Amino acid sequence: MKVMRPVNTKQCVPLIYALLQLIILYGGPNAVTGVWPLPRALTVYPDRIPLNPRTFYFDYGRQSATQQGCSVLDAAFRRYLWIIFPDYTAENGQVTFAVNNSFNLHISTDHNDCENYPNEDSSERYNLSVSAGHASLNAATVWGILRGLETFSQLVYQDEHGSYFVNKTYIEDYPRFQFRGILLDTSRHYLPVYAILKTLDAMSYSKFNVLHWHIVDDPSFPYQSRSFPNLSNKGAFHPETHIYTQSDVRRVISYARLRGIRVLPEFDSPGHTRSWGKGQSDLLTPCYKGGAPSGAFGPVNPALQSTYQFMTALFQEVSSVFPDSYIHLGGDEVDFSCWRSNPHVRAFMQKMGFGGDFPKLEAFYVENIVNITSALNKTSIVWQDVFDYHERRSALSVVEVWKHGCYLCKVRQVTKAGLRVILASPWYLDLPGPTHNWARYYTVWPLAFPGSEKQKRLVIGGEVCMWGEYVDATNLFPKLWPRASAAAERLWSDEKQTSSVERASPRLEDFRCKLLRRGIQAGPLYVGHCKHEFQGV
Amino acid sequence: MKVMRPVNTKQCVPLIYALLQLIILYGGPNAVTGVWPLPRALTVYPDRIPLNPRTFYFDYGRQSATQQGCSVLDAAFRRYLWIIFPDYTAENGQVTFAVNNSFNLHISTDHNDCENYPNEDSSERYNLSVSAGHASLNAATVWGILRGLETFSQLVYQDEHGSYFVNKTYIEDYPRFQFRGILLDTSRHYLPVYAILKTLDAMSYSKFNVLHWHIVDDPSFPYQSRSFPNLSNKGAFHPETHIYTQSDVRRVISYARLRGIRVLPEFDSPGHTRSWGKGQSDLLTPCYKGGAPSGAFGPVNPALQSTYQFMTALFQEVSSVFPDSYIHLGGDEVDFSCWRSNPHVRAFMQKMGFGGDFPKLEAFYVENIVNITSALNKTSIVWQDVFDYHERRSALSVVEVWKHGCYLCKVRQVTKAGLRVILASPWYLDLPGPTHNWARYYTVWPLAFPGSEKQKRLVIGGEVCMWGEYVDATNLFPKLWPRASAAAERLWSDEKQTSSVERASPRLEDFRCKLLRRGIQAGPLYVGHCKHEFQGV
Repeated sequence: MKVMRPVNTKQCVPLIYALLQLIILYGGPNAVTGVWPLPRALTVYPDRIPLNPRTFYFDYGRQSATQQGCSVLDAAFRRYLWIIFPDYTAENGQVTFAVNNSFNLHISTDHNDCENYPNEDSSERYNLSVSAGHASLNAATVWGILRGLETFSQLVYQDEHGSYFVNKTYIEDYPRFQFRGILLDTSRHYLPVYAILKTLDAMSYSKFNVLHWHIVDDPSFPYQSRSFPNLSNKGAFHPETHIYTQSDVRRVISYARLRGIRVLPEFDSPGHTRSWGKGQSDLLTPCYKGGAPSGAFGPVNPALQSTYQFMTALFQEVSSVFPDSYIHLGGDEVDFSCWRSNPHVRAFMQKMGFGGDFPKLEAFYVENIVNITSALNKTSIVWQDVFDYHERRSALSVVEVWKHGCYLCKVRQVTKAGLRVILASPWYLDLPGPTHNWARYYTVWPLAFPGSEKQKRLVIGGEVCMWGEYVDATNLFPKLWPRASAAAERLWSDEKQTSSVERASPRLEDFRCKLLRRGIQAGPLYVGHCKHEFQGV
Repeated sequence: MKVMRPVNTKQCVPLIYALLQLIILYGGPNAVTGVWPLPRALTVYPDRIPLNPRTFYFDYGRQSATQQGCSVLDAAFRRYLWIIFPDYTAENGQVTFAVNNSFNLHISTDHNDCENYPNEDSSERYNLSVSAGHASLNAATVWGILRGLETFSQLVYQDEHGSYFVNKTYIEDYPRFQFRGILLDTSRHYLPVYAILKTLDAMSYSKFNVLHWHIVDDPSFPYQSRSFPNLSNKGAFHPETHIYTQSDVRRVISYARLRGIRVLPEFDSPGHTRSWGKGQSDLLTPCYKGGAPSGAFGPVNPALQSTYQFMTALFQEVSSVFPDSYIHLGGDEVDFSCWRSNPHVRAFMQKMGFGGDFPKLEAFYVENIVNITSALNKTSIVWQDVFDYHERRSALSVVEVWKHGCYLCKVRQVTKAGLRVILASPWYLDLPGPTHNWARYYTVWPLAFPGSEKQKRLVIGGEVCMWGEYVDATNLFPKLWPRASAAAERLWSDEKQTSSVERASPRLEDFRCKLLRRGIQAGPLYVGHCKHEFQGV
């Protein structure tokens, strides 16, 4: 039986599903059970092609703009050889393979962007065609190739004797949203570098492409600044064991780049900065009580020129350390009571004509920071609070919607103002659930608001948030995986093809077993088992 | 300053706390911050005694009934040497120690029970007195010595140079409840043996003394029976990789014994037995639809004589494999619809004079099983459902209260009927929380019901339940620890001395860091850090 690839993929979705089900039903437990997140157009044929790790080769097509020596792809080939053939890693060829015929995976790209960083315009589109003896993986960029390699790795399966197979397959694929992020919070608890790197591995398996590094906050300042070393010397939980050195940061960025993942740093201000004050005097606002300083400190002091000098120097450094063109400036949850108590702040507000309007003061502060980072050629992201109090919204670029309630109302409002949106509200995975049900992260419809096509295009993506109050390296992985993967499919795949929780469920179960096999401590979805259970602890 | 040990400890609790706070406040971050669960009477003096792992010795007192060669204690000495001196393990003496004077920990017991298993009457009481150069640890049994060694290990701390210290201390201690259990469910997900052993380690750190092994249930039958190998051959998730062999079970029991922990097996019936039916034909009730068997099966068939023959043989085996004198028979959540559909079951009920009263049938079944296990000299525990439907309650022994709502009402009712109670309702740690707050497991008052002293004495303890729907080796540890430790203090310590969440909080934070240091993947309680973070993944 041979099924022609449909020209109009939408019409053929039911057919493809029927076929997949057929394969799942009749192929037994070792047959291919799908790719997560679901590709746009996927045709899997019953033809089973045996693979042998010892005669499996990656190579570059002759026409390909990238050739051997491409740092991103050469590293990916090494990585994926072990991912595709896990027993080969463990037993180093102890398995007897059914076949000695070679299999070549030809790679071809349009551009040579091997030494670049992925950015907000990077194409991740790829085509993958698998048939006897070879596969062709074509993409405009190396980032598209990375996505295609991930897909290929998920197509390979083993029979009961450990032999490897891949079915004849044709795939065309591209992401629904450009920005697919995960927020890690390294201030409320310190996350060791290995935990961040392992998260990047897992992100690449679900085709996430942005690590939003909420690196500092009230409780600690683990970023070791070149210009202001006292920030971490005094503001980290521990100045030596609980910090990220410049070399640590470079390692994270480089590791992420090799997986097609951008690293978006957040230096949240003027609130959430208590730890900053420990190593930088005169930065935070002294709170007053009964006409005198109480000894407590509030948000960053927006009334001092020195604040902006410090911020300019800090963001100059941050901009050079983090290559991404986006930067997250925070701006959420500013408490006005300390500013209100301080006579110098109040005098400054009078001088500036703000009267007693604290949101105006806040907007003034944030606009200064936005201007500082704009001058450094960075696109700034702010939390939705800034949009809410800011009068000159045109000064803003990207707004991250995070509050609960009718978040789509806010998405509508922000896009109506012509600003770009990142949606986080439905994906606060750190919150304790009313249920264990992963489906609530799956049944999210980011564009289900009344608005123009132009508005919808302004929704650039979404983000899974893993705030750190109750999260550290002990529980990060089972909390994040595979629940974040539910959001990943929502952000990558076609909405209509992935509207059913029931159909997604066995695929996600299977994907979770793949994560375990790759050493990711992904939590269980429900009663059941994986052939290879987690071997850690 | 020297504080005399008070004769009436209750009156002196505030004094002891004030002193402890003094030590915590003035002793700096490296000073002793407490023992978890809190001992009955604890007096810590400011005198700091240096310890050196190379000149630290365990020895048996001359009067001690146990002497060298005692399997439980010799193994405990080896274990605790590494627990007391963690750097010594890691760096094997690289630290320069401040002192070369030797320190002897003298052990003395009244009984020689080295080769016994702990049981429901085992005394765990101990006295510990620490002063310069030596400590005395006295107990009636080796189980009391184990509890005292755990306490001693928690008293030792390191200064900033890594040197070890213990303060002069006097402790008298004994548990409030005799039964302090943790339920692990190995049917809904298979837990590898290493995960069970590691749980036993962690249990001993919180002075838990019963592992309730809910070993089989509907989804899988991982217990490999000698008499009925088909139960796991056909009923396990996988007949080779997802089972507990006889040798695995022996290993768990032996590991538990060395830590003073009883292993209480549960073979739940007549419900929760779907997996049993795969390897044992004619055991489950065939359900009928439209006058014919539908192909589905219900609970164990109580109408067949063969059922009781099978159960007798199975429980004979189980009784010989598990040495504990208790056995858990389950008996919860029986669905009557399948029994009702089956004409043979209905005919049997008529014959027995039960009419249409299914609870009577259920009681008949359970009473048979209770009789089978009584004949094997086992005390049976049943879930509260059995108490609720059973008319001849005097046939029962121990009832485990698990349902939500007014669980103390049920405790009152069961104790009024003269039966013993194990309380589980408030400690279902697998349920998703409305909050992250550990305090809800701490602020439980098992005896806060109106009743006689005799009734209160019938509450023999409590149990933390970790059901397996959403739990396996990937997330067991951060879900269980340190939240189970909150319940552990409730079950071990004096209620009045441990009524304040606020006072417990820094002690539990500190204890959680100790768990991390010992390699237990204990989750965070709130924002903060430990000197030694979890190094796993």
